[in-house]
Amino acid sequence: MDKTSNKMKITLNSHRESIDRLDAVLVYTLAERFKHTQEVGKLKAKNALEPSDPEREAKQVKRLLRLSKDAGLDEAFAKKFLSFVISEVIRHHESLQQ
Amino acid sequence: MDKTSNKMKITLNSHRESIDRLDAVLVYTLAERFKHTQEVGKLKAKNALEPSDPEREAKQVKRLLRLSKDAGLDEAFAKKFLSFVISEVIRHHESLQQ
Repeated sequence: MDKTSNKMKITLNSHRESIDRLDAVLVYTLAERFKHTQEVGKLKAKNALEPSDPEREAKQVKRLLRLSKDAGLDEAFAKKFLSFVISEVIRHHESLQQ
Repeated sequence: MDKTSNKMKITLNSHRESIDRLDAVLVYTLAERFKHTQEVGKLKAKNALEPSDPEREAKQVKRLLRLSKDAGLDEAFAKKFLSFVISEVIRHHESLQQ
């Protein structure tokens, strides 16, 4: 391996180590988030509320797009990510009501 | 509003406040993660490496499924989440090489 590609490999590995650490933060944060959405799902099922709450979801989308902008996160990605997480949560809430 | 539905509303709002805080953690962590994947993308483009690295991705999937299990995160969700994030990153790497 030449000097350039060795240096490149060290830099690449350093980024990958950071990505792995951040992925652990994401997984544990998502698990904590799901604990709360599960409780919300149970509350909704118990009180015969709709699994989906368009007003709450619209507020979440607006707030998260603002946060994403502040954090420098790509807006298109933020939107896709959010709709992915919300749809998974609704799917879970629906399954509680069946 | 009766006493039960008032109590339910307070509990619901408490969970929603936690969810909002955790979403801020997710957004900022994703932004930090993207900073690193962008650097990886640039390195790969500069050194004419493939945007996708199946060996690295297989390792990531294995590690994240283990982490998800430890964190008590639903495995089906963890898999979907991971494939979503990885495919977005690959899409971004590919766009750098065009």
